[in-house]
Amino acid sequence: MQIAVLLYDNFTTLDAVGPYELLGRLPGAETVFVAKEPGPVRNDQGSLALVADKALADVPHPDIVLVPGGDGTREAMQDEAILAWLRTADATSTWTTSVCTGSLVLGAAGLLEGRRATSHWLALDVLPLLGAEPTGERVVFDGKYVTAAGVSSGIDMALHLLGRIGGDEAAQTVQLLTEYDPQPPYDAGSPEKAPAEIVAYWRRQELVNVG
Amino acid sequence: MQIAVLLYDNFTTLDAVGPYELLGRLPGAETVFVAKEPGPVRNDQGSLALVADKALADVPHPDIVLVPGGDGTREAMQDEAILAWLRTADATSTWTTSVCTGSLVLGAAGLLEGRRATSHWLALDVLPLLGAEPTGERVVFDGKYVTAAGVSSGIDMALHLLGRIGGDEAAQTVQLLTEYDPQPPYDAGSPEKAPAEIVAYWRRQELVNVG
Repeated sequence: MQIAVLLYDNFTTLDAVGPYELLGRLPGAETVFVAKEPGPVRNDQGSLALVADKALADVPHPDIVLVPGGDGTREAMQDEAILAWLRTADATSTWTTSVCTGSLVLGAAGLLEGRRATSHWLALDVLPLLGAEPTGERVVFDGKYVTAAGVSSGIDMALHLLGRIGGDEAAQTVQLLTEYDPQPPYDAGSPEKAPAEIVAYWRRQELVNVG
Repeated sequence: MQIAVLLYDNFTTLDAVGPYELLGRLPGAETVFVAKEPGPVRNDQGSLALVADKALADVPHPDIVLVPGGDGTREAMQDEAILAWLRTADATSTWTTSVCTGSLVLGAAGLLEGRRATSHWLALDVLPLLGAEPTGERVVFDGKYVTAAGVSSGIDMALHLLGRIGGDEAAQTVQLLTEYDPQPPYDAGSPEKAPAEIVAYWRRQELVNVG
């Protein structure tokens, strides 16, 4: 069971590391971080680089493909080397997955055509432009395509996948060992729950960015 | 507001990246990943290296110190260069924090003497040996010392800290943008909630490891 985590400039770190930390604990799993070229790849905060141990060409047929989102999504969506690798990897993958705006990269590769999918709440309206049908769910399964909402949702996605792949006990074991018993001191993690003025502010920012 | 995240061989990635992803979004925050020497530091799964941009000596007075846990904790607890840096940084820090068995490294540096603290549930019994008083809480504040339980709990710790530092609205904004609205498909994230036989199995493993 080979898991390939795609890195590209200006990715969001937790999108990749959240699900990796849990999925990588599956007995027998081998995880490889891949990028166009091996070496450090810097994130969207600019303060951290993760090392891709392999080039895309070195990992053509992973069992699980994981695509994070981030500020660099737009460039990744136009990067033919990344899109070609995704199409090749997807042709033989067991699971093709994304977190946050990583789903837009999958969509740009043509892999979400006609499929239900999700993304960061501020990017849901881009999915139909790529042929996908957005949903408000946190983790969306459509066949072997699994997309998760913003940033932290990849952890929930990983638990779902662990259950499907290894069974309930494997998933519960990983949840226990990573002590994933969330107790956030606020309840503002979705646009339905956050204070309306904060949500409205960020929707305006999005319009500025898109404009 | 300078945040220093300590890296050492065989750290647990999510311990560091979870709180970093949230805290690093605080307006005005500058995060620096530090290690004994700059360069890639490999994690406890072996499949990922994070790059430390600075050496310990380059970052003597961070405002926030963050220590992750991991399989390498035992070596870190005996590493005089790491312990000396922690004591120096702590002398001027605003917050000294840890996730998972990172609290054992703080304890080994003598920083938790007489303080309430937490750690991974399998390591709580080590805290008294370091002069600390273990608690069953997920995030423990004792003055400027903030310790979080296993792996994923650092995300909750970061939200607490964001609220203390930047106020409720800053914390809620980060929670919304990272879509931290947890919906785990299982409820096995603590030894009180996980199936008893899984908990018992891992308690036996711990005994073997300690023995």
